[in-house]
Parts: sequence; C-alpha cells; structure tokens
Amino acid sequence: MTPGNKSLVVILVNPQMGENIGAAARVMHNFAIDDLRIISPRDGWPNEKAVTMSAGGKDIIENATIYDNFAESMYDIEMAFAVSARKRDMVKNVFSPEEAMAGLLDNDKSGGRKIAFIFGPENSGLNNKDISLCNSIITIPVNPEYPSLNLAQAVSILCYEYSKNNLANSNNNGCELASKKEVAYLIDELVKELDKREFYKSDDMRPNMVTNLTNIFTRNELTKQELSSLIGIIKSLCK
Amino acid sequence: MTPGNKSLVVILVNPQMGENIGAAARVMHNFAIDDLRIISPRDGWPNEKAVTMSAGGKDIIENATIYDNFAESMYDIEMAFAVSARKRDMVKNVFSPEEAMAGLLDNDKSGGRKIAFIFGPENSGLNNKDISLCNSIITIPVNPEYPSLNLAQAVSILCYEYSKNNLANSNNNGCELASKKEVAYLIDELVKELDKREFYKSDDMRPNMVTNLTNIFTRNELTKQELSSLIGIIKSLCK
Repeated sequence: MTPGNKSLVVILVNPQMGENIGAAARVMHNFAIDDLRIISPRDGWPNEKAVTMSAGGKDIIENATIYDNFAESMYDIEMAFAVSARKRDMVKNVFSPEEAMAGLLDNDKSGGRKIAFIFGPENSGLNNKDISLCNSIITIPVNPEYPSLNLAQAVSILCYEYSKNNLANSNNNGCELASKKEVAYLIDELVKELDKREFYKSDDMRPNMVTNLTNIFTRNELTKQELSSLIGIIKSLCK
Repeated sequence: MTPGNKSLVVILVNPQMGENIGAAARVMHNFAIDDLRIISPRDGWPNEKAVTMSAGGKDIIENATIYDNFAESMYDIEMAFAVSARKRDMVKNVFSPEEAMAGLLDNDKSGGRKIAFIFGPENSGLNNKDISLCNSIITIPVNPEYPSLNLAQAVSILCYEYSKNNLANSNNNGCELASKKEVAYLIDELVKELDKREFYKSDDMRPNMVTNLTNIFTRNELTKQELSSLIGIIKSLCK
C-alpha cells in the first residue's frame, strides 16, 4: 500500500451512471485509496453496474458510504477540493492538480489530515452551492475545445497525482524536504546580503526580486541538505 | 489546442474491447491529442462500441489508422515508450510518467519529434517482442496489491502527464526557459567562485557539490530571466 492514502476521501455528488461509479472505485483501488462516499446516486443503491465495472475494487463499492446530504458527508474533512472544469465567479483559489498536491505536501508533511476530492454529476458538474462548501477548486488542464472529461477519468487523474506525490515522498532517498520556514530563512539571508550591497537599481526592484527568489527556491522542493549547502555557499561567497 | 500535441501518437496493440478504445479516444481529445493507431483490434474495425464511447472524440476514432503489424505502425516514431505495469527482464530504462516527461522536455524543448505511447491488450499487456521495439518503458506507480489499470485509464494518465507539461510550458507567461548550456554556465560560475574560496573541506566534496548544484538548478526549470537574476546575484555577492 502506498503510504498516506488513508487520509484521502473521494466524494461523488449525484453521480448518474453506475458504470462510472464502478470505474472510479476500480482506479481508486489501483492507487490504494479506499474511502468512497456517494451523495444520492441517480439510479439508487446498490447498483449492479457499479459492482461489475469496479473489478478488483469491488470492496470499495461494497463499503462505500451513501449520503442524502453533501455537507454531512464532509463533517470529518479538513481540506476539500472541488474538481471542476468550468470557471466560477467565486472567491476560491483555483489550482491545477499538481499545484494542489504541492500545497498539500508543503502544509501537511506529517500526513494525517483528511483531504477530499469532490466530483459532480456527469451532465452538469458541481453546483455553486456545493462548491461553496469546499476550500478550493482543482481544474484539470484540458483542451478548451473539449473539456468534458469522463467522471472516472477525472477521478483517475486526481488519484494518480495524489498518490504519485506520496510515492515520490517516500522515495526521496530518505532525504527530508526543507520546511517553508527554512526556505524563507535562505531567501532572507540572500536578500539581506543584497541589501548590504545596494543591489537594486530601483525601489520597485526589491519586492520583485524577493518574489522571484521565492519562486525559484520553492518550485524545486529543496531537501534540508540542499538548503544547508546553499546557505553555506552564500556565506562563502560573501566572505 | 495545446501546443505540441501534434507530435504525440497513441498506439493500442491488440486492444480487446471497443468501449476501451472509445474511452481512450475521448480522453485523447480532452488533451488535444489526435493521432490514434490501432494494431489488429480483437473485434474488428470499425467498431460501434468504440464510436459510442468516444463521445466528443468521435473524429479520432474515425481517423484512427489500423495496422496488422506493430513495427509498421512505428515507422515515423522517433521515441517510443512502452507502457507496462509488469517488471521485465530487459535492458530498458524504466521511467515513471513524470520522469519520462521531464526527459522529453530536457531533450526536446523545440518540440517536433514524434513520440509514441504504446499500450498492450487488456488481458496481458505488451509482449516482450513488442517492448523490444520501444526505446524505454513507462510504469505508472500503482498499488502493488492491484496494479491492473483499465486501458483507457492508463491512456488518460499518460495523456494528462504529457499535456500538462506542454501546458505548463506554454503557460510560462511567455517566459522562455533557460537552455541546458545557460544552466551549465550558472553552475560553472558558482563553482569557480567556490574554488577561489577553497570552499571544499575535502577533494571528494567538489564533484558532489557540482552534482548537487546541478540537481538544484535543473529540477526547477529556470527561465532565462531567473537565470540572469541568479548570475547577477552571484556577481554582486562576490564583490
């Protein structure tokens, strides 16, 4: 089993086709994710087509929890991501799957927080009321000419992206990643030295440079060892 | 349309179920990939179930090229990745989807090379003879207790991972990425300064540090602008 997947929940709100529910369960099992919650499936429950399509993921279908009420299915969820292709007029952060996972890794290295990916019905996606209950939106980057992903395909891409990061973390050759605080220290040290040298040609330049440096050293998930090497290098260059 | 996807080909070797071929075509269209080649589909061709399941990707099914012979379907392919879950006793590089894409970006920033992802039949996957015709193997990281991904799900994950990188590149706010040569120059400059300062406590330390720096500044795909900022910073610190 991949580590950490116990903390991930997949919630299907009003799914229409049993085949899609089954295919979602199958791919959840492929990625060792087993908590499936379903809000009022259109064709009732249990659903024979869901069982057939789930193949090796049959246990996930049989242990799925059925709710009438979306809010109730989320009572134990600490971080809820609405998966949506459509643009919404809402004040919510919109992430790509990869950005969302990077954020989870940054904030949740110890694991254990309950996270949910929430998918709407095949024909219309999540409605605004459901999305308002979620912390953020994930949008899978697709062909704008044909953004309509099959429900189980969307589930597969999110489960893959989530599970991949857990695997990558556990495969980090035992190297612990630097914390946000340590990365901030690196950037502070660098900026202090640049301040001493009056590096910036104009006052505008300083905040931009800080943002650039933060981007550069955040994107690549430095290990503690690498961070400490970089600090050593800066000190040496400044001698 | 996402840029660059014209150079990606999906090849299904002996697929069994029309539904899976159709679902694969649908998700290819979701990621703006349109060249589908099929080697001897079990149930013949055309296949009504494939058309139905392809939904908005119907054109991809109708324009798919059918071959009797796998090798022939690859005549114009420059880089072929066999997608396989099973371990093989073959001298081939095995990559995760992400590693394979990173390699393609490194080697092929200008695009244009014909790349193929090759998928075997649902029941058995690719045979060793077919794999021997491919350059490398891609293995999707899955639950070892249930590695059997549905064919169309495997296609979706690979198309997503491929397309994501192209989108990320094109979404770079118009910033051109630094070339390998420019990154090498940055590292050379840094190492030269460290040499002047006799930074290394032992002779062994130097090559390790060069490798570490290369890792750090390669992983995050620096833009030309960022690279030039970093060189400016190094020069300033060394004053």
